[in-house]
Amino acid sequence: MQAKVLTFLILSGVALGDYWSDRDKLIAIEESQMLGSDVVLTEEEEAVNEFLMKDKLREYDSGFTNPRLFSPSRHFFEVRDNIEESNVFKFIKQMPKGGALHGHDTSLLSYNALYNLTYEDNLYACTVNKRLKLKFMNASVEDEECKWKLLSDLRKEDPYYDVWLQSQLTLVTENPREAYQDINEVWRALDDVFETVTPLVTYRPVMETYVYQALLELYEDNVFYLEFRSTLPEVYELNGYVYNPIEVAGIYKKVADKFKQDYPDFIDVRLIYAPVRNVNNATVEEYVNIVNELEIRYPGFLVGFDLVGQEDIGKPLSEFIQLIQTVSQNISFIFHAGETNWFGSSTDLNLVDAILLGTKRIGHGYGLIKHPLLMALAKNKGIAVEVCPISNQVLMLVEDLRNHPAAHLIASGYPIVVSYDDPSFWGSKGLSYDFYLAFMGMASRSSDLRLLKKLAENSFTYSALSVVEKRVAKRKWHKTWNTFIGTTYRSISRL
Amino acid sequence: MQAKVLTFLILSGVALGDYWSDRDKLIAIEESQMLGSDVVLTEEEEAVNEFLMKDKLREYDSGFTNPRLFSPSRHFFEVRDNIEESNVFKFIKQMPKGGALHGHDTSLLSYNALYNLTYEDNLYACTVNKRLKLKFMNASVEDEECKWKLLSDLRKEDPYYDVWLQSQLTLVTENPREAYQDINEVWRALDDVFETVTPLVTYRPVMETYVYQALLELYEDNVFYLEFRSTLPEVYELNGYVYNPIEVAGIYKKVADKFKQDYPDFIDVRLIYAPVRNVNNATVEEYVNIVNELEIRYPGFLVGFDLVGQEDIGKPLSEFIQLIQTVSQNISFIFHAGETNWFGSSTDLNLVDAILLGTKRIGHGYGLIKHPLLMALAKNKGIAVEVCPISNQVLMLVEDLRNHPAAHLIASGYPIVVSYDDPSFWGSKGLSYDFYLAFMGMASRSSDLRLLKKLAENSFTYSALSVVEKRVAKRKWHKTWNTFIGTTYRSISRL
Repeated sequence: MQAKVLTFLILSGVALGDYWSDRDKLIAIEESQMLGSDVVLTEEEEAVNEFLMKDKLREYDSGFTNPRLFSPSRHFFEVRDNIEESNVFKFIKQMPKGGALHGHDTSLLSYNALYNLTYEDNLYACTVNKRLKLKFMNASVEDEECKWKLLSDLRKEDPYYDVWLQSQLTLVTENPREAYQDINEVWRALDDVFETVTPLVTYRPVMETYVYQALLELYEDNVFYLEFRSTLPEVYELNGYVYNPIEVAGIYKKVADKFKQDYPDFIDVRLIYAPVRNVNNATVEEYVNIVNELEIRYPGFLVGFDLVGQEDIGKPLSEFIQLIQTVSQNISFIFHAGETNWFGSSTDLNLVDAILLGTKRIGHGYGLIKHPLLMALAKNKGIAVEVCPISNQVLMLVEDLRNHPAAHLIASGYPIVVSYDDPSFWGSKGLSYDFYLAFMGMASRSSDLRLLKKLAENSFTYSALSVVEKRVAKRKWHKTWNTFIGTTYRSISRL
Repeated sequence: MQAKVLTFLILSGVALGDYWSDRDKLIAIEESQMLGSDVVLTEEEEAVNEFLMKDKLREYDSGFTNPRLFSPSRHFFEVRDNIEESNVFKFIKQMPKGGALHGHDTSLLSYNALYNLTYEDNLYACTVNKRLKLKFMNASVEDEECKWKLLSDLRKEDPYYDVWLQSQLTLVTENPREAYQDINEVWRALDDVFETVTPLVTYRPVMETYVYQALLELYEDNVFYLEFRSTLPEVYELNGYVYNPIEVAGIYKKVADKFKQDYPDFIDVRLIYAPVRNVNNATVEEYVNIVNELEIRYPGFLVGFDLVGQEDIGKPLSEFIQLIQTVSQNISFIFHAGETNWFGSSTDLNLVDAILLGTKRIGHGYGLIKHPLLMALAKNKGIAVEVCPISNQVLMLVEDLRNHPAAHLIASGYPIVVSYDDPSFWGSKGLSYDFYLAFMGMASRSSDLRLLKKLAENSFTYSALSVVEKRVAKRKWHKTWNTFIGTTYRSISRL
């Protein structure tokens, strides 16, 4: 009998069994609508699931009794170590998670690896307005604003310099609530960190190392595909040469190809050209020219167009509709939209424009559940939401992740993918932390391996790969998945 | 054309106008689904609405630019004074808000008035486990646990005693995050305050003053109806006589009747018998006997049955189904359910039982949006959710009220009523603060007088009044509403 009819009958008082079987039916119907409920597990997967759920329920119920133990309800900065001790997290780390569909060019690498890049040769540093400025150069140059010195020298001169430097490369702090009093403050801090880090990772030789390492970190986290946003920043050489955006895309592609050669089971890397939003029409016109040219030069590599930057500050998509409509039809839109707490503001109304413009996915879409009609229609059109748990918490949209709107999305069976946004800046690495927080904090107590499998599958289903490429990618991922299940199954059996 | 069809066409790419008219239509359709959108305003109401919205948008947009100015995103303890300066709040205070459908017996009165009761004669105090204990007595008694002394004497002896006493009667503190580290802690503190305050307001003469004043506070806040939960606590006389629950109900009714005599435009007071949930079957059996007897003795006064106390701690409704089903059919269930951050736990699954048992309304229903099917069916059955913004924030379900699930309810046109829960303990008074926070923080930027009017109407539509009584009540309220509109209209016209 149709789920809705059955439920309606139950609630009209037509007892179909006794109270308890009606209750069970109602709960079962609800669970059958949750994301992942359509996944059918093999016998081995069922056994692995049982094993996973023992750990999950132990953690979950432990949090129920003692809220302070429940990591998703607390700030990531405070609980990262706890998360790493979780058996559920360790399981998720080993699990092939598919692809990462929401990341940003200059924040892909984990903090530690990013920090290590500051030991590269020819790196100069100075301080401007209490912020660290970095640049790779042949030799120091005259600069009114700051006194460039070799970072290695600065480190020798002052043993505490490095401590300060470390703080400049991250948002992580012991007391985030004190450090960031409101959302504008934390975004300013984020912009500051981006500004400091960008010259570090846009010096071409170091950039290539950086990108390669970022892909390796995904690989080691059992993530085998990446779609990343890039502003295609100015990449430079020591001799002063600055690459134009098309050339920068070429560099990314070169490194990606090299990585795929070295790691043949890594599926691919795709670029979403995503320059900053807070600009005028003339600049957006240039953006459109760039992306259209990218599509001609790198048709398999360039897959999407987006606009980035703090959405509340602007500008909204509605300012650029006509120009955006001149983007080539071969290019998908993959818009950030609704990354906000506001309701009925220009920011969450970006969701309207994103959907009207035909966006393929929605970046964050935090405000989507305040637009139930849009949500229903977007679901109908298969527009997946890219959920980034840690990002939304660190950037102060939500504190306790159990309040994250994605809980409603998961409960409704709305298609989502989970990604990491800017791992460099919150001490994250790969997708596992975000997967863990989505699984434990946003999903139901009863959500299990089927949800995790679904999230991994979704990262291909809703990727910008072609139909054929998706089939190939899923087959590849499925192989690694089965290997993982097999290995886990065998080690459980030995227990 | 049907809203959904129109929207689907728009999003399938069938341009029905240009982009901008499609966009406008989509936004208009969304707005037409929001709570209150079916309210049609008169000409005078439109003028008043324009006036209200000028103030609202100024505040809203000011918060958009400077998040720290936006009260709903901050803890009520920190922004109460700011709220009082808001023109929107002042408007709401004057506005006839209908009835309060979610309040608790021993926390109805504002803090200041509650504190004043500590100056009544014959009040003794002592300290046990660092908590204040109060009791009205003829004379001090021997007590192993504590040394009873007249409060007036204690005040004379120690000028700081009163400062400490004040802290014992409230949860309000300068730094709530430090004071309450997690949800269990704040609930323990709440239970402590209830324990301290209860003997203060259950001494029969003082109780009568207390209840009368609580009704007067509602009246002065332009709220003319009350349905309140009561555990029917032990009410006592100085001579040691203790009233049984039926007699206690009679005392409430007596005071309510007196108040209605003195204030004939106050519509009524109704009782929801709501004893504590964390008990065994035998106790629940007693509860059922009591409520069934109450229904016979006070059929017009007793309107519902509920269970109260921290829901996560238990016990869930499912433990008492058989017993609950022996409650007389003439009594409505008006259950607290889902007042929790958890998803798939016994607490949010209380929503299943509440609805299966035929609850008339849902108290808090915080977790309802994690149960979209239940939500759809409850909407179908006209089960209103009693939203208490300040409560959910103080009791640590949510920080920033823009993350409150009621935003989704309002966006979906789900029937809600707004109420105050335990104003005594968070420095609130009447319904205006909660109305303000729901209006500014949970609704859309475009939500206007129609939402406010709807919330007021809903408090009668979803009350436990009979059909005839509702009609009468609405007519009475409508009169006061029109008076308010007329007065406001005339003062605007003079500007």
